[in-house]
Amino acid sequence: MNSFSILAEGVANITEIDPLTQKILLEVDAPSLASNQADVERVQESLENKFGKVLIPLKFMRHIPSACREGNWQVTATVGVSPGGGWELVDLRPGNTTKNHYGLSIDIGTTTVVVYLVDMDSGKIIDYTAGYNGQVKLGQDILTRIYLAATPDGAEELKKAVLGTLNQLIERIGNRNNIPAGEISAATIGANSTMIHLLLGLDPSRIAVTPYIPVVNNPGLFKAAEVGLEINPLAVVYLMPAAGSYVGGDIVAGVLASGMHRSAELTLFVDIGTNVEVVLGNKDWLVACAGAAGPALEGGVAQSGMQAQSGAIESVRIDPLTGQVHYTTIGNTPAKGLCGSGLIDCLAELFLDGIIDRAGHFQNSQKEYILVPADKSAEGKDILVTQNDINNLMRTKGAVNAALDLLLESVGLDLSVIERFYASGAFGHYLNLESAVTIGIYPDLPREKMVRIGNTSGEGARMALVSNQKRREAEGIVGKMTYFELIASQEFMISLQKVRFA
Amino acid sequence: MNSFSILAEGVANITEIDPLTQKILLEVDAPSLASNQADVERVQESLENKFGKVLIPLKFMRHIPSACREGNWQVTATVGVSPGGGWELVDLRPGNTTKNHYGLSIDIGTTTVVVYLVDMDSGKIIDYTAGYNGQVKLGQDILTRIYLAATPDGAEELKKAVLGTLNQLIERIGNRNNIPAGEISAATIGANSTMIHLLLGLDPSRIAVTPYIPVVNNPGLFKAAEVGLEINPLAVVYLMPAAGSYVGGDIVAGVLASGMHRSAELTLFVDIGTNVEVVLGNKDWLVACAGAAGPALEGGVAQSGMQAQSGAIESVRIDPLTGQVHYTTIGNTPAKGLCGSGLIDCLAELFLDGIIDRAGHFQNSQKEYILVPADKSAEGKDILVTQNDINNLMRTKGAVNAALDLLLESVGLDLSVIERFYASGAFGHYLNLESAVTIGIYPDLPREKMVRIGNTSGEGARMALVSNQKRREAEGIVGKMTYFELIASQEFMISLQKVRFA
Repeated sequence: MNSFSILAEGVANITEIDPLTQKILLEVDAPSLASNQADVERVQESLENKFGKVLIPLKFMRHIPSACREGNWQVTATVGVSPGGGWELVDLRPGNTTKNHYGLSIDIGTTTVVVYLVDMDSGKIIDYTAGYNGQVKLGQDILTRIYLAATPDGAEELKKAVLGTLNQLIERIGNRNNIPAGEISAATIGANSTMIHLLLGLDPSRIAVTPYIPVVNNPGLFKAAEVGLEINPLAVVYLMPAAGSYVGGDIVAGVLASGMHRSAELTLFVDIGTNVEVVLGNKDWLVACAGAAGPALEGGVAQSGMQAQSGAIESVRIDPLTGQVHYTTIGNTPAKGLCGSGLIDCLAELFLDGIIDRAGHFQNSQKEYILVPADKSAEGKDILVTQNDINNLMRTKGAVNAALDLLLESVGLDLSVIERFYASGAFGHYLNLESAVTIGIYPDLPREKMVRIGNTSGEGARMALVSNQKRREAEGIVGKMTYFELIASQEFMISLQKVRFA
Repeated sequence: MNSFSILAEGVANITEIDPLTQKILLEVDAPSLASNQADVERVQESLENKFGKVLIPLKFMRHIPSACREGNWQVTATVGVSPGGGWELVDLRPGNTTKNHYGLSIDIGTTTVVVYLVDMDSGKIIDYTAGYNGQVKLGQDILTRIYLAATPDGAEELKKAVLGTLNQLIERIGNRNNIPAGEISAATIGANSTMIHLLLGLDPSRIAVTPYIPVVNNPGLFKAAEVGLEINPLAVVYLMPAAGSYVGGDIVAGVLASGMHRSAELTLFVDIGTNVEVVLGNKDWLVACAGAAGPALEGGVAQSGMQAQSGAIESVRIDPLTGQVHYTTIGNTPAKGLCGSGLIDCLAELFLDGIIDRAGHFQNSQKEYILVPADKSAEGKDILVTQNDINNLMRTKGAVNAALDLLLESVGLDLSVIERFYASGAFGHYLNLESAVTIGIYPDLPREKMVRIGNTSGEGARMALVSNQKRREAEGIVGKMTYFELIASQEFMISLQKVRFA
């Protein structure tokens, strides 16, 4: 289990598999003078007996006569949901190949891309793989990429970069599971609005300027070839719908995965990454907002920051009497740096031990705190926390709290009525809840109400991949979600200046 | 009026214009912090208020933000019928361009291609243009082309040839009406099954061998770019549905244009071209069959044959006493050759004057009949009728009569109950009915029941272009038509050996 595996226990599960594509064996009657129906209509009728209206793309009209004869009138058809409703033919092969039915659920993060290989008939994850988003090299944060997209060739470069990553991961996961890319018939993608715009070649510039209008929130269904995914070119690709410029398909997927939209419990959902996204509500209503938090907790942003990989410090204790540092690393290997959970742990300890104050400043005029000296670290460099790292984290904390206050105020409620709290995202999955509450990045709720829920963007996308019902629920979530443009709120900007520890 | 103008009086007309594409002006509210809907959903909602479900292709997602702002939130949208039902966006331009709304109806004949430019709002033909099908150079008759399609690159060559003709005609008609090709948003095509297969790159080989199974009868709706028509790449292209390998979309279009499928009158519809197609029925039932007749009446096939153009002999009288030939030519210019109607006239006169007998043989051992000697013809060559020309025509006559007998027998009726007779096709439009009846190519019915109905393939296609109701009627015609594979019938082959004049 690492940070890309999905879902803690106790969250929504799919009861019925009803996938974006279905694969069935057709036994078609051979034609004769007495039965002179055309080949395409013969296959189409056979499909429509089962699925209702099924469109046959021109490519398959060309292919059907030979496939039917090669398979001696036994062919395996894959049909996928069609943008206009109904179904369309996505694949057709001679003989019986029904046992190989694969799809992908994909989480495109600003920093990290995860591709999950899914068995479309069982709904189960077969394998997954992750890598850095190739756009990171072109611009680390979202705003830089939005500016780059406005330069000549910039948008094209960014699109190619993320497609490069996606197709590399798809190739890797296909190779190691012996599945030709052409046999993958569907994919769903959870990503924030800017990632979706850059992937589709849509101009993201208006996401960044008032009144923060995206080109599209719910782009819907595409063919893989249109998007550029190197799987079956006619594979169905569904992009999780967004609620607004800063509450994207990743968050809607998260809500879907959490099941909060179907629960009577008043639920708070917090996802901390480059931005902070907060959703509050239950089966009757949902309110959401987001704030740019700075990528304090993304691997590689803090001075000694790194991804949650082997050698990353994931937990920290500082003895209040001796000041001695105790830490654990992922894989129990020599320390290379700090991942998000290690950083949160470290700051909580520094605060509890009085080394930093409530406002996040070092007390005795020091500028940094050395956690692991160079001679004890894996790479011969001090592993440390700087004032700048602390400031970044204070902004994240400020964003979470401002968003939470705004949402609670908008519905006239306070923290005490919250019945469940979901900490979403790779970050939320690993941190020490106590530490996160100590530094005030998560609210101080009864611990039994708090659940670390994992990569809900990938999981929500998987749900929409293997269940059309869940896909419709995702669109229902958008429909009933009230979205506040926190990033545009004056109070929010001011509140960021006054953040203090709890 | 020439042979490509459509429809004699007294045939079906469209009562309500309900075209494949609709063009409307949208006044969209500009976004603001208080109205932060995405651009695409803003336009989509505005369209869906009028049309119900409207799909927005990715191309327009990219284009909508700039078009809306350039037009100051006033844009003109063209929506077209979507293969899955509902509508999809076909064009979007800033400002108000609603007054230019164009479509094409196209008749692809084995020999001749006609393109009609249609005003999509009035349903009227603005202009039309015709040319030889570029495939003629690769193979004059259908069988030759089917064989060619089975050779390496043959299918591609044939496809390119007909697309070359189509796109040349489209360019010509656009230029002379000052309409950029990109502003043409829809097209419908009437053509026989082999022409449709070659156009779409489908293997036509099984059309020619028992049990005569086409790849597809009703290919449905496409995008212009898929088909290769050089108009708006997302323009809606509809191919008239076929009833079978030898009763193609051209004939279904003809039935639609004739209105016989909605009439209480028992109607006989005959189209003579390369093949002979015969349809019998009324609003309650339809039976159809076809036979390969040989292209006796296509311009250029008879020894002195030519298209119905300036200089073609279109009517002939031979004085029974003096043997003197009287003829008229199209445009009253010196005679260059014989078009179909001239040939029929000539044969009828030769028979009436006893120069050929009932079996179509010259009486006094002559091998040909010189109508215009070389010194009186425009090109210094004898214009004549050969035994071979007569034999070809006898085959056509045989095909018509065998088809008619088969259909009448299949429904247990005889000629006397036929209440209306439609002579379809460019050929049927011009010939002298008396001559055609004399030589027995058309049945001897009361003349007031006989109507020469013109290019019904192009006209049926026009109807389906400007009326979705008519398009559905075309599919209804196929649904209720019983199709007999005459070409496969043993009796038919034998009957061709015994053809005699009436």
